[in-house]
Amino acid sequence: MTSGVAPEDRSRRRRGRPKRGDARSGRDRIVAAAEEEFSQVGFEASSFRSIARRAAVDPSLVHHYFADKSELVVEVLRLPVNPAQLLAEALQGPREGLGLRVTTTLFGAWEDPIVRKRALVMVRTAMGSSPVSTVVRSFFLSLLVDRVAEVLGGGSEAKLRAGLAASRLLGAVMARYVVHVPALASLTVEDAIALVSPSIEDALSGVLPDVDTDHLGRE
Amino acid sequence: MTSGVAPEDRSRRRRGRPKRGDARSGRDRIVAAAEEEFSQVGFEASSFRSIARRAAVDPSLVHHYFADKSELVVEVLRLPVNPAQLLAEALQGPREGLGLRVTTTLFGAWEDPIVRKRALVMVRTAMGSSPVSTVVRSFFLSLLVDRVAEVLGGGSEAKLRAGLAASRLLGAVMARYVVHVPALASLTVEDAIALVSPSIEDALSGVLPDVDTDHLGRE
Repeated sequence: MTSGVAPEDRSRRRRGRPKRGDARSGRDRIVAAAEEEFSQVGFEASSFRSIARRAAVDPSLVHHYFADKSELVVEVLRLPVNPAQLLAEALQGPREGLGLRVTTTLFGAWEDPIVRKRALVMVRTAMGSSPVSTVVRSFFLSLLVDRVAEVLGGGSEAKLRAGLAASRLLGAVMARYVVHVPALASLTVEDAIALVSPSIEDALSGVLPDVDTDHLGRE
Repeated sequence: MTSGVAPEDRSRRRRGRPKRGDARSGRDRIVAAAEEEFSQVGFEASSFRSIARRAAVDPSLVHHYFADKSELVVEVLRLPVNPAQLLAEALQGPREGLGLRVTTTLFGAWEDPIVRKRALVMVRTAMGSSPVSTVVRSFFLSLLVDRVAEVLGGGSEAKLRAGLAASRLLGAVMARYVVHVPALASLTVEDAIALVSPSIEDALSGVLPDVDTDHLGRE
């Protein structure tokens, strides 16, 4: 994974408060600092304040360019969409149908050829052992596990449910888009969602096997 | 992935019919030819005959060293165990409990630190886009999907069931051993098997959502 910002992203930069000459270098310094900070302490432990310190800018400048940390990850990983925003939309609404909404959102994103190309890079990075791999994994865990567990009410059972749902979604996405298991890769996206979503719904709301999850509550 | 045979494997080479001087080069040539052949035509389409031709040896020499193609894959990928043998053992016995046996075998293998180290390399390779990635994927599909579908009686429904089970096993293994999703990574191996195996049993024997699988039968 290369650092910095792609040329096409530069043109999207908001123009505003900082002087024009400083703006480019300031925003780029922030993105580079975020990449370093995420790599070293992970997505969860990093903050706008620590990233600003590393970039030698005022924290308000970070807020000027980026609404939250997920927007910085989108820049660092050069993602064409913000997975945090997509997931937040899917998490709205009743508990019933939550598994279907999350599955539909995830598969829908992967069906887009541009998203898929970057998502493949992200998956390959997540499987690796580089510092950026840790960023991708902690971002993914923070999104799909922690955010979903919150929506389920928190606690060890919610974490177990969210983790199980995430592992099944991971397997389904890998099978369809990366490994190309025919049973999933050759289905229409509608059929793939119909095949996968009941097990996600089940992980989130159904009966779970009795396993010791006390340690999950403590983390 | 480097080609050829690890030094520790060389000492395991059976001594027998071929003259001592030729033996080493013959066996090594066969493994190198298998790697090329698997990379170019995939695991399924390759044969002892085509590998022998590529190595410029008699097919009987390939049979002399290797019982079947899976043993050649074990050499090419330098695996410390033969996944095909492990799976064949798990597939024996009644249909009931098949999901539990396969899950237990797979997790048991990954718990072994030496197996896990090579399996991680294999998983990372499978996610890649190199010719060896194709070998790993086609070997994995041949084992976990085609062999399991045969045991389930063949046909499009059996392929769908085997593919769905494989995707869930893939997700569970990735979550526990690669991405380290806490809900799966922090459980004892017994609890992880208890958590995952019902969904594998369900994929193999339970009620499936109604999706169009006609195309799977034709492949």
